[in-house]
Amino acid sequence: MSFPVDVVVMAAGKGTRMKSGKPKVLHRLGGRALAQHVIDTAAGVSARSVVVITGHGAEAVEAGLAAHAGTELKYVRQEPQLGTGHAVQQALPALADDGVVLVLNGDVPLIEASTLQSLIEASGGQHLVLLTVEAGDATGYGRVIRAPGRLESVLAIVEEKDATVEQRAVTEWYSGVLAAPAALLRQLLGMLKNDNSQQEFYLTDIVKHAVSLGKSVYGLTTHDGVQVAGVNSPVQLAELERAYQLRGARALMEKGVRLADPARLDVRGALMCGADVEIDVNVVFEGRVSLGDGVRVGANCVISNAAIGAGAVIHPFTHIDGEKLGVGVGPGALIGPFARLRPGAQLGAQVHIGNFVEVKNSTLADGAKANHLTYIGDATVGERVNVGAGTITANYDGANKHRTVIEADAHIGSNSVLVAPVTIGAGGTVGAGSVISKDTPPGSLAVARGKALVVPNWSRPAKMKP
Amino acid sequence: MSFPVDVVVMAAGKGTRMKSGKPKVLHRLGGRALAQHVIDTAAGVSARSVVVITGHGAEAVEAGLAAHAGTELKYVRQEPQLGTGHAVQQALPALADDGVVLVLNGDVPLIEASTLQSLIEASGGQHLVLLTVEAGDATGYGRVIRAPGRLESVLAIVEEKDATVEQRAVTEWYSGVLAAPAALLRQLLGMLKNDNSQQEFYLTDIVKHAVSLGKSVYGLTTHDGVQVAGVNSPVQLAELERAYQLRGARALMEKGVRLADPARLDVRGALMCGADVEIDVNVVFEGRVSLGDGVRVGANCVISNAAIGAGAVIHPFTHIDGEKLGVGVGPGALIGPFARLRPGAQLGAQVHIGNFVEVKNSTLADGAKANHLTYIGDATVGERVNVGAGTITANYDGANKHRTVIEADAHIGSNSVLVAPVTIGAGGTVGAGSVISKDTPPGSLAVARGKALVVPNWSRPAKMKP
Amino acid sequence: MSFPVDVVVMAAGKGTRMKSGKPKVLHRLGGRALAQHVIDTAAGVSARSVVVITGHGAEAVEAGLAAHAGTELKYVRQEPQLGTGHAVQQALPALADDGVVLVLNGDVPLIEASTLQSLIEASGGQHLVLLTVEAGDATGYGRVIRAPGRLESVLAIVEEKDATVEQRAVTEWYSGVLAAPAALLRQLLGMLKNDNSQQEFYLTDIVKHAVSLGKSVYGLTTHDGVQVAGVNSPVQLAELERAYQLRGARALMEKGVRLADPARLDVRGALMCGADVEIDVNVVFEGRVSLGDGVRVGANCVISNAAIGAGAVIHPFTHIDGEKLGVGVGPGALIGPFARLRPGAQLGAQVHIGNFVEVKNSTLADGAKANHLTYIGDATVGERVNVGAGTITANYDGANKHRTVIEADAHIGSNSVLVAPVTIGAGGTVGAGSVISKDTPPGSLAVARGKALVVPNWSRPAKMKP
Repeated sequence: MSFPVDVVVMAAGKGTRMKSGKPKVLHRLGGRALAQHVIDTAAGVSARSVVVITGHGAEAVEAGLAAHAGTELKYVRQEPQLGTGHAVQQALPALADDGVVLVLNGDVPLIEASTLQSLIEASGGQHLVLLTVEAGDATGYGRVIRAPGRLESVLAIVEEKDATVEQRAVTEWYSGVLAAPAALLRQLLGMLKNDNSQQEFYLTDIVKHAVSLGKSVYGLTTHDGVQVAGVNSPVQLAELERAYQLRGARALMEKGVRLADPARLDVRGALMCGADVEIDVNVVFEGRVSLGDGVRVGANCVISNAAIGAGAVIHPFTHIDGEKLGVGVGPGALIGPFARLRPGAQLGAQVHIGNFVEVKNSTLADGAKANHLTYIGDATVGERVNVGAGTITANYDGANKHRTVIEADAHIGSNSVLVAPVTIGAGGTVGAGSVISKDTPPGSLAVARGKALVVPNWSRPAKMKP
Repeated sequence: MSFPVDVVVMAAGKGTRMKSGKPKVLHRLGGRALAQHVIDTAAGVSARSVVVITGHGAEAVEAGLAAHAGTELKYVRQEPQLGTGHAVQQALPALADDGVVLVLNGDVPLIEASTLQSLIEASGGQHLVLLTVEAGDATGYGRVIRAPGRLESVLAIVEEKDATVEQRAVTEWYSGVLAAPAALLRQLLGMLKNDNSQQEFYLTDIVKHAVSLGKSVYGLTTHDGVQVAGVNSPVQLAELERAYQLRGARALMEKGVRLADPARLDVRGALMCGADVEIDVNVVFEGRVSLGDGVRVGANCVISNAAIGAGAVIHPFTHIDGEKLGVGVGPGALIGPFARLRPGAQLGAQVHIGNFVEVKNSTLADGAKANHLTYIGDATVGERVNVGAGTITANYDGANKHRTVIEADAHIGSNSVLVAPVTIGAGGTVGAGSVISKDTPPGSLAVARGKALVVPNWSRPAKMKP
Repeated sequence: MSFPVDVVVMAAGKGTRMKSGKPKVLHRLGGRALAQHVIDTAAGVSARSVVVITGHGAEAVEAGLAAHAGTELKYVRQEPQLGTGHAVQQALPALADDGVVLVLNGDVPLIEASTLQSLIEASGGQHLVLLTVEAGDATGYGRVIRAPGRLESVLAIVEEKDATVEQRAVTEWYSGVLAAPAALLRQLLGMLKNDNSQQEFYLTDIVKHAVSLGKSVYGLTTHDGVQVAGVNSPVQLAELERAYQLRGARALMEKGVRLADPARLDVRGALMCGADVEIDVNVVFEGRVSLGDGVRVGANCVISNAAIGAGAVIHPFTHIDGEKLGVGVGPGALIGPFARLRPGAQLGAQVHIGNFVEVKNSTLADGAKANHLTYIGDATVGERVNVGAGTITANYDGANKHRTVIEADAHIGSNSVLVAPVTIGAGGTVGAGSVISKDTPPGSLAVARGKALVVPNWSRPAKMKP
């Protein structure tokens, strides 16, 4: 029993309580827009299409979300906004009758694919199935009224303001998530009326219409409040971010990753770890990061879009950001503390990058070292090269960027400037404090510095009177 | 119905459990001395005067607190220290009879102005009003005994050691805070006796004396344990610091600020935020800091006394400390990672300050950039200037500090030293590795470096035998 | 009544759930291997010997643990592994009959010496004593069955899978820790049989054998779940690490140390603090660190193996790692932000080390300063020396390391390189941007720089077409 699955994502709301110029569903949790989480989870149940209903900030929302291969991403606009039922009505033209439709909320980001799969299966291509919740405090939510003696069957969802005292005592509440065959959903949505004080079409009214047609309405219950938690304010966003991060931290630990403090890890993207990886306190990962076997990441690092090879050690206070070009760190490399690797830094095995060193768009071959106070930009550095403290590759002439090549086994003296384009030949040496702007042959010593003048018994300037 | 309000702050205790050489009420919470919080809150109810009763470490306390405009700050000393009643007796000469007196504790920092206002209003210029507590465990506190059938009226406060079993079962306890008309307070304090085992004059005895005079004693109850929490030890100080920070974080979020982790934010002073501000994990703010609309502050920043313009991005590991001079960051500026802005750094719009760059007492005009390994001190930097990697403004001749001026559109080559006083003319260029100690004309190229000497087939020093 | 105490540490298990190539008992908590905690605690009860039973990863375990003076550390291997009783049987040849034996678990690191002392005393050299637990959920643990009416006496430990419904309701469980006279333990271990489904010899079976011999078996109960918590997975390791750190933080605060956030302190080793020490958020200490009176440590510091003198201020983002050589910071010194002190850095009183400065294997005498962008390696720096921004001591000629000496009161100009071996004479000055490779006399000015050439009306390179 398998059906095409189409997903409707409610994403038209304004989110006034966010107090933000950004549409609510674009706010980020774990580095991804809230609604993107929902789209990604839809892909996890192999949805045929995702129909996002936009309204407030529609253009921003439509520009800010990304599709998955295999899932068609469509947008429909709800204008004006006449209620949740009206919202889903807008999606109907985009939905084929042969599918099961999941209605999800763009501001409920942590619903899991396994939960959606259960809803689809319970629907069986025939039934309306609600995801209900037994967790936390039901106050403020629509209560789920079950048929006495036929507990599988939901009779109604009653909004709190309309509920009797008995109904308010019900602890089961409706999550806002449902599954239904497209044809049935179409039929039920057609029966909605806005004869209420708000003059809105309520999606939850489809339950009573289904019952009136003699249909069983199923209620599948979750006890996991995190999966159905909505984001309406920065406070709720922060709470859910923490819940998300703690779940992620636990999942990493269960794969063997050792975390010094699970409450002080932030992963905003995809973190892949080999065996025996250790991550110290207060580390932030963003984008796609992979850590090879035995990698150790020290305290207070920020690492984005990078591949770190096996056995590498990232010392504390290291900032790595590969952005689109990525950063690669070879096996056994030692990075930091206080190092910064920028896009296009590609480091070989056993490379050492030390304190106050920046590497950008450069390749360092195996065993190369730059341990102190150095800028390496747009450079190709050979094997076993030693770059002395205070070295600068001057890659920018004020108009264009040029490349520096340092061939294998060269030694660059402290405080030197290599003015690109320039090549230091293999095995060559540059004397400390030199400015080198022309290529030097392999094996040579190049020195460019002023002759020392010593003035004996020199009087230092005196402190001026104020 | 409005009365002058005078506040008495109990601040004479030693605070032995703090195990510190510093008087207890000077220990800091949220960056302010405990007693300063109380003085600030007194100003929040427009107190006419604040009388601080000092004793242990009196001189340090008197030197360590600051008055508010509109509120007179007085100190009286309690020597010797003969109990809480005796303490307040010392304040009587400083109190006028036309006011309502609030008695507060200098080590109970988080009492709120609205609570004080309620006490003043309940007093009505006539009554003794106690602030009582129904929160947490009453063990160890004085229990509040109410008149049966007349629950508005307090009969007594019974210390735990003197309490009967029934009295110990009372969950309402006395916070140490009260309000009373000055004249009544004066009368009641005059009735205190020290005929107890400690031979002390207890302030709480005024309740029984008021009752003996036929006066109603009111008890206003709070359920907020944080407002009445006292600090007696470093553990309690740390607990209250966290409570304070979490309340502050929540208040920021409710205004729309997005915090990656409310449990990892520390604000020690006043933080003002525009719309759509985002603050990443583990950021510390001190003194007065303002963040304009859309500012993003990265992980692990420490920012003190600074004004950050709209749209600026503060990357991780940035340290900004304006101290008294302040720091200004212009709109759209990009700062860090690993940048340090010191007092008097004033950056224009779109300025970029990159990694391992320090700016002190300098002005950078719009669009200026210093991206790598640079020290800019006592400098005036023009629009669109590009300061190359490794540049140093040598502002100190060993005795005096001098100013460097870099005019608009100049480019400073990598690893250059500008020896102040010196001016680089507009649009000029300084060659990499140059030491410039004389002014250069606009549009010129200035180069000061040694001629390169290349020695072919040079043998590097050999490893010495140990 | 005093007995020799011998400790058996169970350390043969594989720890499959750790998902690590490292034997479980070598995983670190608070910077020490789990089993090392147990060995250290054994020393705390003056154990005569510690016998560690190894199995999986035996060689690594035996290489990874350290003995204490006064306690003999022995290893016995359990191969094959036939159960917990079999494990202790392997230790018998190493145990003398005159002692009391404590059986501890190498993966239960936080048992306290006072608890062990209680067990030894309860044993009285005669009795088998079990450490039982009334804390947390007993599910999964062996229940402790007491004799009705004789509650001091344990009848049996029943594994959960063998327990009746009534027995499962027992909330007291066995910790795995016991004390027994060696001779009795030897006798009881000799009675073990492996006639169970697992064909293993269970240590807990000694209880029933003791009972069968008419011996009383005592059960000493702890309510402290942390002391008996075992580590079987990275999740449990992280939980116990946090419990350990919070206990340590509280102990520091009770001695008067002020912590900005006890939940964000990590001490992995021994931290000794003087009076009025303040530690800001997110600081990590490793190895042996001492902080003198009044030391303040800023946010986000990582400090290992260092002695910080009274009144020193360690600004945020400071990395100190003394490793084996240690680091010393003199009284009143100011370090950081963004400073790095490496092994052998020895700083005198009032030394200032500022941002982006690295000091390694160097001595700085009282009052010396290096405030910006500097590398000081293998140097001896005299009193009151001022090292200008961007200075590098070039200590490495590509083969050997040499020493730089800067005598008292010298001033080193910005961006200079001192090529070791070299001595700058007392009171001397080095001009900015100089490379100095020969000794300079006291009181001299040494300058080595190129003559400035100024090209008027110079055209900067134009942007190339792509």
